[in-house]
Amino acid sequence: MADDNTIFIGNKPFMNYVTGVVMQFTTKNEEQVLVKARGKFISRAVDVAEVAAKRFLNGQVDVKDVKIDSEEFENKEGKQVRVSTIEVLLQKK
Amino acid sequence: MADDNTIFIGNKPFMNYVTGVVMQFTTKNEEQVLVKARGKFISRAVDVAEVAAKRFLNGQVDVKDVKIDSEEFENKEGKQVRVSTIEVLLQKK
Repeated sequence: MADDNTIFIGNKPFMNYVTGVVMQFTTKNEEQVLVKARGKFISRAVDVAEVAAKRFLNGQVDVKDVKIDSEEFENKEGKQVRVSTIEVLLQKK
Repeated sequence: MADDNTIFIGNKPFMNYVTGVVMQFTTKNEEQVLVKARGKFISRAVDVAEVAAKRFLNGQVDVKDVKIDSEEFENKEGKQVRVSTIEVLLQKK
């Protein structure tokens, strides 16, 4: 799946992300959209996926798959840090 | 799966939940544990599942399935409210 089907969730206004997902399916006519987030934004990614699929695209789009994982990286103090990640795959019915 | 295999994530200290998951697999010898959360606790549920599976039970337990959904309920003001939910199924290898 190309990168422009992927929506990364951060701290912009909530509806920006929902609109972004909906437009991928409508204006850009994509078959699939991947909603990704890390750490504290994971709850928000689930909200975006659920609101897009159930309120705005109800009957047209399903949650096809949900994956969770961890990423390890070195922080500024040189310490190994672990952060959780999520990927929610939305797909046209 | 019986209810006592299910860990609901709330605002107790993080390690309480991780220990709860680990003990289900070790002391209670369960084959599966379900980590559930709603709303803002979803990020935390993913963290609990990842830390239990990858740090404490690495090589012994996998994330078998992740499901997201929405629940609708009426709040105190009589308004319909939607909240996202997650269920992470951990399973012994």
